[in-house]
Amino acid sequence: MIIVNFKTYLEATGQKAVELAKKIERVSLETKVMIGVAPQFTDIIAITKAVSIPVFAQHIDPIQHGSHTGQVLAEAIKETGATGTLINHSERQLRISDIDATIKIASEKDLVSIVCANNSDISVATATLKPDIIAIEPPELIGTGIPVSKAKPEVIINTIKLVRKINKNVIILCGAGITRGEDVSAALRIGAQGVLVASGIVKAKDQNMVIREFAEATKAGRVSFES
Amino acid sequence: MIIVNFKTYLEATGQKAVELAKKIERVSLETKVMIGVAPQFTDIIAITKAVSIPVFAQHIDPIQHGSHTGQVLAEAIKETGATGTLINHSERQLRISDIDATIKIASEKDLVSIVCANNSDISVATATLKPDIIAIEPPELIGTGIPVSKAKPEVIINTIKLVRKINKNVIILCGAGITRGEDVSAALRIGAQGVLVASGIVKAKDQNMVIREFAEATKAGRVSFES
Amino acid sequence: MIIVNFKTYLEATGQKAVELAKKIERVSLETKVMIGVAPQFTDIIAITKAVSIPVFAQHIDPIQHGSHTGQVLAEAIKETGATGTLINHSERQLRISDIDATIKIASEKDLVSIVCANNSDISVATATLKPDIIAIEPPELIGTGIPVSKAKPEVIINTIKLVRKINKNVIILCGAGITRGEDVSAALRIGAQGVLVASGIVKAKDQNMVIREFAEATKAGRVSFES
Amino acid sequence: MIIVNFKTYLEATGQKAVELAKKIERVSLETKVMIGVAPQFTDIIAITKAVSIPVFAQHIDPIQHGSHTGQVLAEAIKETGATGTLINHSERQLRISDIDATIKIASEKDLVSIVCANNSDISVATATLKPDIIAIEPPELIGTGIPVSKAKPEVIINTIKLVRKINKNVIILCGAGITRGEDVSAALRIGAQGVLVASGIVKAKDQNMVIREFAEATKAGRVSFES
Repeated sequence: MIIVNFKTYLEATGQKAVELAKKIERVSLETKVMIGVAPQFTDIIAITKAVSIPVFAQHIDPIQHGSHTGQVLAEAIKETGATGTLINHSERQLRISDIDATIKIASEKDLVSIVCANNSDISVATATLKPDIIAIEPPELIGTGIPVSKAKPEVIINTIKLVRKINKNVIILCGAGITRGEDVSAALRIGAQGVLVASGIVKAKDQNMVIREFAEATKAGRVSFES
Repeated sequence: MIIVNFKTYLEATGQKAVELAKKIERVSLETKVMIGVAPQFTDIIAITKAVSIPVFAQHIDPIQHGSHTGQVLAEAIKETGATGTLINHSERQLRISDIDATIKIASEKDLVSIVCANNSDISVATATLKPDIIAIEPPELIGTGIPVSKAKPEVIINTIKLVRKINKNVIILCGAGITRGEDVSAALRIGAQGVLVASGIVKAKDQNMVIREFAEATKAGRVSFES
Repeated sequence: MIIVNFKTYLEATGQKAVELAKKIERVSLETKVMIGVAPQFTDIIAITKAVSIPVFAQHIDPIQHGSHTGQVLAEAIKETGATGTLINHSERQLRISDIDATIKIASEKDLVSIVCANNSDISVATATLKPDIIAIEPPELIGTGIPVSKAKPEVIINTIKLVRKINKNVIILCGAGITRGEDVSAALRIGAQGVLVASGIVKAKDQNMVIREFAEATKAGRVSFES
Repeated sequence: MIIVNFKTYLEATGQKAVELAKKIERVSLETKVMIGVAPQFTDIIAITKAVSIPVFAQHIDPIQHGSHTGQVLAEAIKETGATGTLINHSERQLRISDIDATIKIASEKDLVSIVCANNSDISVATATLKPDIIAIEPPELIGTGIPVSKAKPEVIINTIKLVRKINKNVIILCGAGITRGEDVSAALRIGAQGVLVASGIVKAKDQNMVIREFAEATKAGRVSFES
C-alpha cells in the first residue's frame, strides 16, 4: 500500500493534480498494487470523478456541521467520494483531544483514518486511539531524501513491535525521505505494511518511472512475504 | 452586493451547495443584483463550473506552494475559477501578521480579499491593510436574527465614517443577524454597500423567496441612492 | 493526594494566593494528607517561599531556553522551587507532540508531570507517554458541582482499569465537579489515588472548612484501604 | 527609552534575572535614562521587589479572571507591581481580535501596552488600536546583529511617518539586531523614541559595558534633539 501526499505542491495542484492521479491509477491497475492519493481539498472532487483509486483528504476538522466557516467538514469530504483522511500530519498537527474526536468522526462517517505520528512514543499513544492506519514520519527526515527505513531501521522495528502490543489491527505505514524503490523495499522488510510519500513522487523528474519503481518494490515485497 | 456564506451547513454541502448556488444565480440574473457565494473548499470547483456568479473561498492560508499538508493554497483557489476569499471570519480568526500576509498573497494571485472584522476598532485596523472589501460582523449578533443594522446602527454609521477616513476605496459590507429584506434595506441606508449573510438564506424554509427579497431590497436601496 | 488548581481566579491571585496556600499547608500538616497547589506563574515564587507543600505550575511550554518571548520555560519553573507542572489542562490543551515533548522536558528538569485527560481514550493514550500523574477530568463536568466520581463512576472505574493495563506506575487523580468530602471519598472508593480540585476549594465560602473536609475524607479513604 | 526583553534566556532566568535587573537599574540611575525590563512571568515579582525601574510582562492573555488554567491574567501582572506588558511579540503572535482585547484590558488595569509589529503595514494597523507604545521589529533581523536602523533606515523613517499620521501620541520604539551604542544612536536619529533590545544586552560578554553604552547613546541622542 502506497499513499501519495500531494501537499500544496504546484506540481500537484488543479489540473496537474488530476493528471498525476491518472498516472498513479494506471500503474496501480497494471501492477495491482494499491496506491492512494491525498490531494488538496479543492481538487478532491475532480480526482474522485477522474479515477477509481482511493482518495484521501489531507485533514478534516473535529466539527459537526454548522457555523464553522473555513473549516473542513467530514460530511463534505465523504460526499466527494473520498475514502478517508490524513489526521495530524506533522505540517498540520492537532491537540490530542482533536485527534481523538477526528478519529471518531471519521469512523462515524465511514472514512478511513490515517493518523501521522512523529516518533515512537506518539505512534504508540495514537495507536490506542484506534485509527485505521498509522503513518510514522520523523519530521527531521521529511524532504531530506534520507529514508526513515534506512536512517533509523531499529527505531521503526521497535515502534512497530510496541504498536502491535497495543493494537493488533492497525495498518502501519512509514514515511519521510522515501525516494527510490529500494527505500520502499527496506520499509516493507522491517515490517511496515506500506509507505506514505510526497516529494519523492510529486517532485520526481519522471513521475511515471518512480511510481512504477515504488509499485514494483511493493509487489516484490509482498511476494517475498508470501513465500 | 450580497455575499452568501455557506459555512459548513449541511443544507449547503455537496450537491445541495451546487443547487443553492444555481438558485442564487437565477435571482442574480433576473434582478441584476450582484450576489456571490462562499462555499466549502471541496465544493468550489463544482460551483464555479455550474454558475457564473462570483465564488469565494471561506479562507486561504498565508503560505506559498510547498510542504503545507492540509492547508489552503491561494493558487489552488485561483485555479478553481474562484473570484476571491473571505479572510479572518470570526469562526476562523487569524493573527494580524497572517491577515497582512494573506491580503498580499490574494492580491498577487488576483483574488478579491474580503476581511471580516468584529468591531469598529478592528474594522479601522484592517482597513489600513488595504483589503478589497471589509465585512463588519459583531460576533455577538451572528446567528441571532437581530441584524447589526438595527441593533447597533450608530456603531455601523460611526465605523463606516472612521474606515472611510483611512481608506477611500474599500467596499464595506455589514453582516450578522440579517434575515429579512428590510434588514438589507436598513444596512444600505446606514451606508453599507452590501451584506454578508449565512443562515438567513441557507437555513431559510423558502430559500428562493428570501434570496429574492434580499435582492429586491438591494435593488431598491440602489435606486433610492441614485435618485 | 489533593491538588488545588488556582486557575486565574481573583480569590487565588497575588497576596490571596499566598494566603490560600498557607491555609492549605496548615491543614496538610495537621492531617498529614499531601496537598499541592497550582497557582498562576507570577505567584509561584512567593508561594514556594511561604510554604513547604508541593507547588505546581499550571503549564510549561515545550521549549528549550532561548528566544521564546512570552513562553514558560521549564528551568524557570524549576528555579522557583516548584515541584512539577500541569500539562494539557482542558483550558490549555496541547498538540500530542507537545504533550510528549513537555513530559520529556519535565522529566529532564526533575519536575513532576501531571497530564490532564478529558476522557477514557485520551487517558489511555497519555498514559503511554509515561507522565508521573494523570488527572481524568471530563470537561462537561468542570465547575458544575456534579462530581465525576458520582456522575460517571463506571467510566472512571473502567478508565483506571485500562490505564493500569498500559502503565503500572502512573498515579491517577480524578477531577471535575468535586465540592464535598463525600465526593473525595467516592473518588477514592472507585480507585482514584487522589483528586484535582479548583472552584470547590478556591470559591468556597469557608475555604478552611472545605480543605479540612477534603483532607479528612482522603485520610479516611486511606485508612479504609489499609484495613 | 530602552526596554530589555529577557526572553527565556538562561542568562536572564531566576536569580540571574534579578541580578541583571539590578545592573540595569544602576546604569539607569546614573545616566538618568529610562530603562525597563521584560522578564519571564515567574521572575517578575522578585524583580519588582528588587528594583524601581519599570518592569513589563512579556505577554498577557485577553481574558477576564476565572477558569483559564495556564493563562496570564492582567490583574495578576498588575498585582506584582509591573508597569505594563509586551503584546504580540513576533515569538508570541496574536489574532487581531486578541490584540485589540488585550490593549483594552491593559488600559483598564492601568498597564502600559507595548505592541510589537513586524513591518510597516502592521505598525500602522496596530497604531489605530491605540496602544501606548509600538515596537517595530522586522523578524528577519531579530538576533542577527544587523540593526533595523541600519539595514532598512528608510523603512523605519517611512513607517514612523505613516504611524504619526494615524496616531499622534503613540511612542515608537524600534528593535531587532541592536548590539552597539551606535545602533541606538542611529535608531534615535531616524525618529524612533527608543529601542527594544534582547540578546544585545542579555547575551553580551560584559553586560554592564553594553548597558552603559546604550544609555549613553540614548542620552547623547536626547541632547542632540534638544539642541
